[in-house]
Amino acid sequence: MLDNFFEPDSVAVIGASREAGKVGYEVVKNLLINEFQGNIYPINPKTNEILGLKSYPSILNVEDRIGLAVLVVPSQFIMSVIEDCGKKGIDSLIIITAGFKESGSDGARLEHDLAKRAKELNIRVLGPNCLGLIDTGSKLNASFAPGMPIKGKIAFFSQSGALGTAILDWSIKENIGFSKFVSLGNKMDINEADLLNVLADDPETNVILGYIEGVKNGRLFMDAAYEATKKKPVVIVKSGSTAAGARAASSHTGTLAGSDNAFQAAFKQCGILRASTIEALFDYALVLAYQDLPRNNRLAILTNAGGPGIIAADACEKSELTMASFQQETIESLRSSLPSTAAIYNPVDVIGDAKADRYLSALKALRNDKNTDALLVLLTPQATTEAGLTAQGIADTFSGSGKTVVTSFMGGESVKEGIDILDDNKIPNFPHPERAIQALEAASKYSNWKNNPKQIKQERTPVDNEKIARILSRAEKQTEHTLGGSDAMEVLSEYGFVVPKMGLAETGREAMEMSSEIGYPIVMKIASPDILHKSDIGGVRLGLRDDQEVQRAFDEVISAARRYMPSALILGVTINQMVPKGREVILGMAKDPDFGPMLMFGLGGIYVEVLKDVAFRIAPIDHREAASMISEIRTYQLLRGVRGEEPADIQSITDALVKLSQLVTDFPEIIEMDINPLTVMTTGKGAIAVDCRISVNV
Amino acid sequence: MLDNFFEPDSVAVIGASREAGKVGYEVVKNLLINEFQGNIYPINPKTNEILGLKSYPSILNVEDRIGLAVLVVPSQFIMSVIEDCGKKGIDSLIIITAGFKESGSDGARLEHDLAKRAKELNIRVLGPNCLGLIDTGSKLNASFAPGMPIKGKIAFFSQSGALGTAILDWSIKENIGFSKFVSLGNKMDINEADLLNVLADDPETNVILGYIEGVKNGRLFMDAAYEATKKKPVVIVKSGSTAAGARAASSHTGTLAGSDNAFQAAFKQCGILRASTIEALFDYALVLAYQDLPRNNRLAILTNAGGPGIIAADACEKSELTMASFQQETIESLRSSLPSTAAIYNPVDVIGDAKADRYLSALKALRNDKNTDALLVLLTPQATTEAGLTAQGIADTFSGSGKTVVTSFMGGESVKEGIDILDDNKIPNFPHPERAIQALEAASKYSNWKNNPKQIKQERTPVDNEKIARILSRAEKQTEHTLGGSDAMEVLSEYGFVVPKMGLAETGREAMEMSSEIGYPIVMKIASPDILHKSDIGGVRLGLRDDQEVQRAFDEVISAARRYMPSALILGVTINQMVPKGREVILGMAKDPDFGPMLMFGLGGIYVEVLKDVAFRIAPIDHREAASMISEIRTYQLLRGVRGEEPADIQSITDALVKLSQLVTDFPEIIEMDINPLTVMTTGKGAIAVDCRISVNV
Repeated sequence: MLDNFFEPDSVAVIGASREAGKVGYEVVKNLLINEFQGNIYPINPKTNEILGLKSYPSILNVEDRIGLAVLVVPSQFIMSVIEDCGKKGIDSLIIITAGFKESGSDGARLEHDLAKRAKELNIRVLGPNCLGLIDTGSKLNASFAPGMPIKGKIAFFSQSGALGTAILDWSIKENIGFSKFVSLGNKMDINEADLLNVLADDPETNVILGYIEGVKNGRLFMDAAYEATKKKPVVIVKSGSTAAGARAASSHTGTLAGSDNAFQAAFKQCGILRASTIEALFDYALVLAYQDLPRNNRLAILTNAGGPGIIAADACEKSELTMASFQQETIESLRSSLPSTAAIYNPVDVIGDAKADRYLSALKALRNDKNTDALLVLLTPQATTEAGLTAQGIADTFSGSGKTVVTSFMGGESVKEGIDILDDNKIPNFPHPERAIQALEAASKYSNWKNNPKQIKQERTPVDNEKIARILSRAEKQTEHTLGGSDAMEVLSEYGFVVPKMGLAETGREAMEMSSEIGYPIVMKIASPDILHKSDIGGVRLGLRDDQEVQRAFDEVISAARRYMPSALILGVTINQMVPKGREVILGMAKDPDFGPMLMFGLGGIYVEVLKDVAFRIAPIDHREAASMISEIRTYQLLRGVRGEEPADIQSITDALVKLSQLVTDFPEIIEMDINPLTVMTTGKGAIAVDCRISVNV
Repeated sequence: MLDNFFEPDSVAVIGASREAGKVGYEVVKNLLINEFQGNIYPINPKTNEILGLKSYPSILNVEDRIGLAVLVVPSQFIMSVIEDCGKKGIDSLIIITAGFKESGSDGARLEHDLAKRAKELNIRVLGPNCLGLIDTGSKLNASFAPGMPIKGKIAFFSQSGALGTAILDWSIKENIGFSKFVSLGNKMDINEADLLNVLADDPETNVILGYIEGVKNGRLFMDAAYEATKKKPVVIVKSGSTAAGARAASSHTGTLAGSDNAFQAAFKQCGILRASTIEALFDYALVLAYQDLPRNNRLAILTNAGGPGIIAADACEKSELTMASFQQETIESLRSSLPSTAAIYNPVDVIGDAKADRYLSALKALRNDKNTDALLVLLTPQATTEAGLTAQGIADTFSGSGKTVVTSFMGGESVKEGIDILDDNKIPNFPHPERAIQALEAASKYSNWKNNPKQIKQERTPVDNEKIARILSRAEKQTEHTLGGSDAMEVLSEYGFVVPKMGLAETGREAMEMSSEIGYPIVMKIASPDILHKSDIGGVRLGLRDDQEVQRAFDEVISAARRYMPSALILGVTINQMVPKGREVILGMAKDPDFGPMLMFGLGGIYVEVLKDVAFRIAPIDHREAASMISEIRTYQLLRGVRGEEPADIQSITDALVKLSQLVTDFPEIIEMDINPLTVMTTGKGAIAVDCRISVNV
């Protein structure tokens, strides 16, 4: 899959040029000077030779097989060139040329035609409007980027070509090595999901990095990422926000959803680490690419100065890492080998006058400590500090230890020798302790993800799908195509939601019988399509407690309605179960343009409206994911019970979320819905869906 | 003030050494090689010459006046040396020697004696246990740090000597210049407040940076910072947490307070910018030291690539900056000078093939835009990019513009020339756009602080202080020395708080009369010091509505109490006003070990307990500060009114906070208190302090 993009036996450059500075020249030059081992075929009808290579008027003139073609011809020639490629049997194409979707509607049309034809011809395309691709393993630099990155274990794909150039340039200065480097361009065909699939199985790659502004297909992206993160870490910077679409949100969920929440949820569900900055992206990558994953989150800090030790401990406190509590043996070993003024608990402070030997004794003790998973070594340049020897000691002691080690040698010239040695030994050094801690935290998070693979379980409630579809189709006749009241309740009932019992009674006797059946107390409401504000005319009676009250209320409600609007069509009264008190939560769904149905959960009322304290997940979800969603909100403790309250029936919320997930996944015509409130009783007592609105795209 | 520390006419080094590597040698060397212009007197009884300078057996042998003495003698000699200093009339002393407070109780005793004697002799002391001090203006390097920083406009003081060394070393590599560099050590005498006072008036310093782990005296620190930030920005990294003291918190406020919240509040109240990392500290400093302050928070972004532009716009969105909306003239000017594919709205994208001239046209347009306060120029290295010329263009165009300009030239070798030119022109460049935005945000925050000086107004409620003191003294007899009930209410009443009306009635008749006077409905409670759980025995009656109900309730409550506990002392019943419904808030105070009384405000009940949604300020505060405190909580909207509710009487909360501030400031014996709840009515209707507990240190 995509093999010819990374290890082609030969490359043609269609639109190659003799003129230095032109893209068609730089691509040929990059292939040549970086010693690509296969044949290179410059294609240019106007010359016979480019950079010492024989040039051909057309790829059809090349006799040998061509593995990969790089196109730099102007966009107006693209449709005829692709035909040549088809004839020549080329299956892998990088289109560097710009002037497609990014340039307006004409370009978009051209891109559409190109995509269609490429597909017919079975040609996979990277780009158009991209920088190209680099594979350090096969020494393939099929790009016009200046400079070749060094070889390393980090793969990087970027939706922004310019950012890619900047990062390449920076990586050379910082000595950061890449396995693969891919500029995605317009993602006409090959997109981030394809790359995740390929890079997950690439033995040269230890960690996959990406910069994206959006995804081509949210579902495919999630599936690819889910599989990839089982094998190796994926870290992504996501910037920008896609337009949420023209339709204004009509539900609480719709109002709160938003593209960034969708990405946040999707990343979480498929184990992608989200870096908030490009700096963090590479900070994480260095630890993930070259260090063992921490087995757990227990951090030891070793320093020769109090201040930086405190800074690091503070940062640890704010992170998901914890400060390791050393084994007794470790403490004894530190006590016996360090001077009495040293701090032997975590952070271990070997004191300002420490030479390398003192660091070394401490390092040995910490290497053996069973309560330590990761180590951060801090060093400030004091009079007696031996940065180089200390660095070598760290490398020697922790090589093969199975523990994660990073450093923060702080300073400039005085610590340079040490940092170079760390670099040679693939121990990531950070200029400040805080960045080191953040990177370790990312490694710990990924370790936790990898050790707890989440198998999405199929947990389906058996429902009559045809019946649901029929009910949903009633939305066509409703205002804003939104189902409420009994229609929405019918849908929920079918999925096994408990809904308030209700019925229509035409006579006082029927009302009494129905009330007894539902169970007292009950609520009575006038049933008339013509009367909107039922309460205002005395058409609603709450908390009726027995047959007698029901009989009397029936007479009063009906006559009040007749008095108020003699012309109204009166169907009788509805008898509604009084919903017992409980904790009110809201469950909802809004369609995300990238990821489809996105579920929301939060506590009802002001918690959603004012605090916006909600959690999101992309559907479908299983019970485990639903439970994590519920426990994620800040007000989770209110469900667990505060001030001696009994806990709410959280299991019933989990069930409800999984059912909602099934509903919105099976019926893509549902574009937004709120179950608000779902009234949750105490543990074991279930939950009742009191009200619901479903907006349908009919 | 501290003049001889920074511009002494001569320096003596007491404990100077001939042996390279010794602190006493390095200090003399630093003075010499950095060309300190005054006389240098090495003091060492065992030699006549050190580094070519005449050495004296004692400072008493030096005939000339000595401006500043640096002590590096072992701590056991310190008491005799200070006597010599006194005799010689030295008024400024840097004690580098360690072995004092930081080394245990013997050292602490020595430090105490030293401090006492220095004070008697009118000698100001920096240290002990410090790295020394550097003043680049007078070429004074009175430290044992390796390397001299270059001259610049940034002053830096550090509580950690080792961190100081690392930063000095790093600053030389990064070409960052300092005016003053001070290692505080143990802060026996000179502390951060002294330095703020001195540096605020130092013409060589544009921005004051500090690293602290605690403060010597919170009040003095705040006063000094408040005055300093009127003149120039102060940025501080505060790490570590001071022990909250042995006493366990007994109030909500005490539980939530904590040292970090105190520092956060103190910094806010005196305009200190808090940097969360050392990296951020210097990022902010570069903008604040060399760029004009932005007049407002409107940012323009100029880029040659979409990706980084989006990253920057995202970061702007998350910050307190806003994206500038350009004037029409600016848009026209951009439209006419840039190619049609360029983006002329903010972010302005001059497109990947832009040379310097295209950047320059855009720069000119943005310089003149009246809706832009600050500019971030992004540059990625593309084939045609001219990093050097572009950098020069930025410097030339924006010099004297009064606008804040920072850049993010991203990459390595390709952008180095440009970055060097920016550096020469004091335009801060950041490797990634996010850091640039954060630094600009800090500058904008400081600009806002400086333009809105907060004059603390004296707003005092006239109270009978002697009476308050008398009531507080009753705490001596109470459990945990905590006043509740009528005592606490009496204190609040004296400050003009509205408290529920109540009284003690011994007979049914008295109960009726009192109830009429207080106004129905009322609450009746059994009054007996022996009965703790009043409700359980039927000793509490809510919502009594008339005389008849009161008479009956009186008889029932008294006889229930007699039945329940025949031996109990029964004083009668209390008649309490029924507090109308309102929004419940909590006001409190806990003593912070550094800053003294710290006020807390939040919404009552679960908002405090579960969400911990509270705001803190150090007392005293005025109405303006109280209002900012109230509006700071996440649930502020609940006070403003949601779902059509009327707003709460926020003015009455402001008043209550200012009164509380006065109470706890005037009576330092109060160590913790909660007014919980203060029930707040709708606008204009006031608030009632329903319950209160005051813990007193008697």
